[in-house]
Amino acid sequence: MTYADRWLLPDGVEDLLPQQAQSIEQLRRRLLNLYGGWGYEMVIPPLLEYTDSLLIGLGRDLDLMTFKVTDQLSGRTMGIRADITPQIARIDAHSLKRSGPSRFCYAGHVLHAKPKSALATRLPIQAGVELYGEAGLDADIEVVSLLLESLQAVGLDTLHIDLGHVGIFRALAEAAGLNSEQEETLFDLLQGKAVTEIAAWIDANIQDAAMAAMLQTLPSLAGGQDILAVAREKLAEAPDEVLAAIDELEAVAEVVAARYSNAKLYFDLSELRGYHYHTGIVFAAFAPGYGEAVANGGRYDHIGEVFGNARAATGFAVDLTALVRLGIGEQASGKAIFAPATEEAGQWQAIIALRSQGEKVICGLGEQAAADVAEQCDRQLVLDGGEYRVQPLNS
Amino acid sequence: MTYADRWLLPDGVEDLLPQQAQSIEQLRRRLLNLYGGWGYEMVIPPLLEYTDSLLIGLGRDLDLMTFKVTDQLSGRTMGIRADITPQIARIDAHSLKRSGPSRFCYAGHVLHAKPKSALATRLPIQAGVELYGEAGLDADIEVVSLLLESLQAVGLDTLHIDLGHVGIFRALAEAAGLNSEQEETLFDLLQGKAVTEIAAWIDANIQDAAMAAMLQTLPSLAGGQDILAVAREKLAEAPDEVLAAIDELEAVAEVVAARYSNAKLYFDLSELRGYHYHTGIVFAAFAPGYGEAVANGGRYDHIGEVFGNARAATGFAVDLTALVRLGIGEQASGKAIFAPATEEAGQWQAIIALRSQGEKVICGLGEQAAADVAEQCDRQLVLDGGEYRVQPLNS
Repeated sequence: MTYADRWLLPDGVEDLLPQQAQSIEQLRRRLLNLYGGWGYEMVIPPLLEYTDSLLIGLGRDLDLMTFKVTDQLSGRTMGIRADITPQIARIDAHSLKRSGPSRFCYAGHVLHAKPKSALATRLPIQAGVELYGEAGLDADIEVVSLLLESLQAVGLDTLHIDLGHVGIFRALAEAAGLNSEQEETLFDLLQGKAVTEIAAWIDANIQDAAMAAMLQTLPSLAGGQDILAVAREKLAEAPDEVLAAIDELEAVAEVVAARYSNAKLYFDLSELRGYHYHTGIVFAAFAPGYGEAVANGGRYDHIGEVFGNARAATGFAVDLTALVRLGIGEQASGKAIFAPATEEAGQWQAIIALRSQGEKVICGLGEQAAADVAEQCDRQLVLDGGEYRVQPLNS
Repeated sequence: MTYADRWLLPDGVEDLLPQQAQSIEQLRRRLLNLYGGWGYEMVIPPLLEYTDSLLIGLGRDLDLMTFKVTDQLSGRTMGIRADITPQIARIDAHSLKRSGPSRFCYAGHVLHAKPKSALATRLPIQAGVELYGEAGLDADIEVVSLLLESLQAVGLDTLHIDLGHVGIFRALAEAAGLNSEQEETLFDLLQGKAVTEIAAWIDANIQDAAMAAMLQTLPSLAGGQDILAVAREKLAEAPDEVLAAIDELEAVAEVVAARYSNAKLYFDLSELRGYHYHTGIVFAAFAPGYGEAVANGGRYDHIGEVFGNARAATGFAVDLTALVRLGIGEQASGKAIFAPATEEAGQWQAIIALRSQGEKVICGLGEQAAADVAEQCDRQLVLDGGEYRVQPLNS
């Protein structure tokens, strides 16, 4: 093995070097502070736990994304979390069993055995919130509002959110009498936005003309808030659940738009991200120049079921790694003060005083001179008439 | 599988619930702020990488502590880090190849396949620093000083540090002509502080009377700064390296004691923590009521060798999980203001204003009343004469 081999990191695995690490840390603090101010309590779930609790409800995709290891103490299989949401469900259902609403926030790594897309990292750092115990729209409104606040807090200029509702397709599929295989096929086609294939499949499989027309129209029901009126018209014959879902979207959008006049709200009624576990309104946030969502969320009311405590739940996760890759959160950090090595006692006191004022002070080591640290320092500490003073480094 | 089974976490794996999580977060920020003020640049190495780079230099112990997974993209074995130090060595040697001193800090999880002791967590959260590129004592002094600052920053009342120097035993073992098996045996005995067995083994294996006496005396060379004078006398016949090591300890202790008059410095010349990779002064910090060290560090000058860039290095890691278990870092956090659900636009502005002042405001959901949130809130927002005001919740 050569040195070069040892340096190599696996694909999709990377170091976050000082500038990026500092940006991540900054975004992390801003978001956790924000969530704290909204009453979300921080929890730190473990990086790994038994797959029996980690892989609940979220299906096969998550299973394939999860690294497995054998617990040497119990012989059971543990997974390294690929998602934090199931862990929060366990905490809500078991560790902090409460009757009223509970608000949780978190920030940390998840690990993906396979990257989500070709260029994606396998070690995203996420910050997120979960709101448990409230089935009403107030919870959806709060969480979508908090996502918009998150985008503001990290410094995004455009607040672009896509909203959908998995109840629309679910109710239509049921009303059309699709079996689970058919539902899965149509779901895949809709996810792929393959309009021609969708049309062909519906022609071949749906007898009822009104139902076929409604399913055909789904992919076109995407756009600004006007699209909800169009949807209400085109889906007028649909089951009540569909119209109720549109009402929910409209009600949430109305409050959110009033609160955040700068937000751009888009609707996509065939957007089915997380269809297998979501149960209501779903949403995603986008940033200019990045194809994937920088944040995802939505309602998943049944997730606590396997822990014996099914509670209404909604929340979202923000991908800090993606934001930093986009250059968001970067700040020129001030340069430091150089203090040459000396045993003179007064200098140590001067250094302590400067640091306590928030200054960054780098102590010289051995023979190190100011010229050696010009990259990091723009000032230096000098003894001048018996007192330590800070002077510009180039004067 | 019953619900109860699903709730179970593996031994040594635990959730950090709100109070503990908040304490961890607080300590983490205080320490990273401190390290930033000393010019240490934050890096975030990946949670896993190829074992070829992860398990360098630190020997079999670390190997057994490391969870292994197969990389589905390359087929190679990856390890989930059980220690962050080798990752920083890789970053210093390769990613940020610099000629002068480099200072790095980090905070994050490590995973241990087996707990270090029966009650230890397998997921410690560490914060630490590494100083590369300076072989002189200035680096040791800086790092020991920074550890004392760390103990102060997290709010420890007693600053208790043990100092040792692996060069003492290493030079004595070499001078005594011990082969590697003998050295390992004596090392194990010394680590176990098994005085009778140490005496018997030395009697049986060391011919030279002066050398035997010096090795016999090692375990007794532990105590306050006076012990260094005793050591200099009892080890007078030892190789120069031994006496140089004592000089190094004394020089570091002198500066550090002058800087931190409240620090309690102990010396233990047979303390050999991390003997297999340390090369000079080693140290550990202790907190009352906790048997294990809450921080460990020392010099390891050869760690970058396998990356083709052996640089002098010293540093330490603080165990945040241990500190929080000791109740360090806990603070009563202020209660929140309750804002009942209403669509009245003025309330949202009032909430935003309060949050921007650093207040925690919890919005009512649905029919939720102030009485339902008395646990979290001690004040409420009320509309009083056309204006929103904050009032005590019990009045």
